[in-house]
Amino acid sequence: MSLYKDFIEKFSHIQLLRQIEQLLEWDQQVCMPAAAVEIRSKQLAYLASLLYKETTSAAYRDALEAMIDINTENIKIKDLSFTEAANLREWARDFKRMTKLTKSFIQTYYTVVTKATEVWKEAKKTANFALFSPWLQKVVALNQEKANLLGYTTTPYDALLDLYEPGITTEDLSSLFSDLEYFLLDKVKRTSGKNSPYEVYFEGSFAQADLMSFNQLILDSLGLYNNHNSRVDFSVHPFCMGIHPTDVRFTIHKDNGLLENIFATLHEGGHALYELGLSKEEWATPAGQAASMGLHESQSRWWEVMVGKSLPFWKYFYPKFQMIFPQFKQLALSDFYQHINHIRPSCVRIYADEITYPLHIILRFKLEKQLIEGTIEVEDVPHLWNDEMKRLLGITPTNDAEGCLQDIHWSSGSFGYFPTYALGNIYAAQCFHAFEQSFPAWKENIATGKFSFMRDWLRERIHQFGRIYSVAQIIQSITETPMAVQSYKEYITQKYTNLAIF
Amino acid sequence: MSLYKDFIEKFSHIQLLRQIEQLLEWDQQVCMPAAAVEIRSKQLAYLASLLYKETTSAAYRDALEAMIDINTENIKIKDLSFTEAANLREWARDFKRMTKLTKSFIQTYYTVVTKATEVWKEAKKTANFALFSPWLQKVVALNQEKANLLGYTTTPYDALLDLYEPGITTEDLSSLFSDLEYFLLDKVKRTSGKNSPYEVYFEGSFAQADLMSFNQLILDSLGLYNNHNSRVDFSVHPFCMGIHPTDVRFTIHKDNGLLENIFATLHEGGHALYELGLSKEEWATPAGQAASMGLHESQSRWWEVMVGKSLPFWKYFYPKFQMIFPQFKQLALSDFYQHINHIRPSCVRIYADEITYPLHIILRFKLEKQLIEGTIEVEDVPHLWNDEMKRLLGITPTNDAEGCLQDIHWSSGSFGYFPTYALGNIYAAQCFHAFEQSFPAWKENIATGKFSFMRDWLRERIHQFGRIYSVAQIIQSITETPMAVQSYKEYITQKYTNLAIF
Repeated sequence: MSLYKDFIEKFSHIQLLRQIEQLLEWDQQVCMPAAAVEIRSKQLAYLASLLYKETTSAAYRDALEAMIDINTENIKIKDLSFTEAANLREWARDFKRMTKLTKSFIQTYYTVVTKATEVWKEAKKTANFALFSPWLQKVVALNQEKANLLGYTTTPYDALLDLYEPGITTEDLSSLFSDLEYFLLDKVKRTSGKNSPYEVYFEGSFAQADLMSFNQLILDSLGLYNNHNSRVDFSVHPFCMGIHPTDVRFTIHKDNGLLENIFATLHEGGHALYELGLSKEEWATPAGQAASMGLHESQSRWWEVMVGKSLPFWKYFYPKFQMIFPQFKQLALSDFYQHINHIRPSCVRIYADEITYPLHIILRFKLEKQLIEGTIEVEDVPHLWNDEMKRLLGITPTNDAEGCLQDIHWSSGSFGYFPTYALGNIYAAQCFHAFEQSFPAWKENIATGKFSFMRDWLRERIHQFGRIYSVAQIIQSITETPMAVQSYKEYITQKYTNLAIF
Repeated sequence: MSLYKDFIEKFSHIQLLRQIEQLLEWDQQVCMPAAAVEIRSKQLAYLASLLYKETTSAAYRDALEAMIDINTENIKIKDLSFTEAANLREWARDFKRMTKLTKSFIQTYYTVVTKATEVWKEAKKTANFALFSPWLQKVVALNQEKANLLGYTTTPYDALLDLYEPGITTEDLSSLFSDLEYFLLDKVKRTSGKNSPYEVYFEGSFAQADLMSFNQLILDSLGLYNNHNSRVDFSVHPFCMGIHPTDVRFTIHKDNGLLENIFATLHEGGHALYELGLSKEEWATPAGQAASMGLHESQSRWWEVMVGKSLPFWKYFYPKFQMIFPQFKQLALSDFYQHINHIRPSCVRIYADEITYPLHIILRFKLEKQLIEGTIEVEDVPHLWNDEMKRLLGITPTNDAEGCLQDIHWSSGSFGYFPTYALGNIYAAQCFHAFEQSFPAWKENIATGKFSFMRDWLRERIHQFGRIYSVAQIIQSITETPMAVQSYKEYITQKYTNLAIF
């Protein structure tokens, strides 16, 4: 057997362990009886320690090092396919990253973020930043240590960003986001700041079963067949978990509003399609894993926003929607379309519209970058947050619960993650622009319920590659230009000009 | 730290691995998308190999051997509690058993039974024993080899029986079952062999949601609070999985009839109460595990039959049942009670009544004992089965699908398991007799909806002990007599005489 095949044979159980870990996490959010939380944390801690041991063992390193120089990434064996060579490169990078973090660091880190998350929940509930502040200090310090262990050349924030969006630097983001901020600030100023005039139609309650019927129509169109290779459930926070291309699970929020749930279905469904489109054959290798969090987010935003908030989409679905929810028979499609694209600054990121959303991310990026670089103090976060919110969106949170305490990410240690949300929008717009040129008739197809050509295009141009190519390479190959914010700006200008919003 | 505490600290991850394995099995039956079956079998095979490695390692053996002589069970360390000493004894027994089966045997065994189960499904579907016969031969041969590896003195069947019901021998069973057979044959002869006259009331369809409402009342009474420390779902075959005393999951059959589902809820709920009653502190040790499959079955039959098919139970529940299912307002409680205890021989074990059920087990016990002892051939099974069915129940299966192909157990290799179903009834009746003497007013309590005194009694007298005591010791302590069939016979005679059935 070749060294490469032997390596797969010997170490594919590592990916099985990751899948099992994911299943336990999914189960915890969706099925697990509440009282089992303590034993579940023991099960997960054991799996994590086993995974660490297996991915950093001498046997693993030696087997990998026999095929590739882990430091220089020079490949030592011959006759590899392009995919096999890419896998070696990604395994080497993963190994380097994993072994830089010591076991004791990881243990301390998880103990602190677990506790910090509990404290954050309480602090958010009582809008009490002082309660969370000492824990945020600990988490920031640990992330600074993490960045030092991982190594960087320019700023420690680069090391953290690289965990979620390989290939993008803090400098790239700063320039990208300053361009975007300038553009969006101008747009926000042109909006009314008032509620949608059609808000009243969405105030009543609705039957859960009706929502599920309508969602099922969407899932069928997207090609997500419940209980075949995917499933949808309810959970406190919507999420998607791709255990394997034959086992992709996502959730929507049980108690949320009608539109929120429909767009969550499209958003998580977009994530699910990416996971389902990964290679089954490469399930145990990086070629079978998503390229980055930003590219993942581009897939969810593609279906949620580029498609799901487009007129053609609702030309097809609105009559069906009105059949299931007859109260909307009084609301014209054009008004419904206006409503779902209404722009209004609000303090809470997860309810933000398409224009203000990236500004929420830019705010977080600036603050977390400065925290990690040590140029601002944790205690200054609330007033810096509020000042920036005023400057960007013209509003001030009434308290820290809807201000700097609103998101879980910092308490769970995910510094470097937020920017991927904005990158997702940029990637999506850029790829969509290329897609429109290949399929000028996409609107007519979507408006008559044809979706598979679009899903197939994404699968062929993005999903199937896994980590074989970098995000930059994927974007370049689709758009024939480097990653840039131009398409996103054009898309926004055109759409909202047509909507007569600006 | 003491050797004992050190051992727990070092090896409790073995129990975590078992819990994780159980969760994956539960998920496969209840949640998993169908297409994931292939990757799931890889995940489970990996966990099984890891468990085998961990439970047979030299490090594990040495740590255990430092505390107890694994062969003689002589304890080498001092100042142990009764529970701690019992745990050492059970760990030693488990280790001896596990290391007798070689890794290559286990791999061959699981490969064969996995394939045999697939073939059995097809054979049952087409009522084609010839298709299954060569695979049954393989499974029998592997079970003979298993018995040889495990070791025995009198008959190889003893070695298999011991896996499910430690302490019971084939000789015990033969004498017990021949006594029972003589008793039950006489009873069966006195029944009409006709359908219940009230069958017509149960022929219509019913709303799933109504069944769930009624089941919820039962679960509340039993003290099974969905989503707190347990949960109920639907699956193809009802089962109960006790992952931990804070995470017990059971299922009922989605497409089954109304009564079948209610009694399945009581049956699986009885299993669940046993698992919930095990010690939380001893979760990682034998003291936190159920004593035997037979004792487990006694708990399910207790709630399903001794309670669930009793008049006091329905005095309380029948008015509620009639509220939810108004079609039963025409059927008097006494007639309903008569109906649920109607006796009529049928070919299919899982639909059998209280009187004929043990005869189905006795038939299987005799056949599987002879198969393992090599005194009958696999090819003779169909006609031996049919002859015995005629002799015991006076009926003949129309084909092998409702004859010797009806159960999954043999294809999955579980020789030695069937007897525990009959033992469960015997244990339940014997313990119930003792219970009645302690609580002569149990009927009045149950008839007014008081259930907790009964659950507490079972918890105190059975559940909390786990494997600290043998089943024989538990029965002796409750009833002050050894295990015997007398109480069961008295219970049957009294109940069915009162029902004027014989």
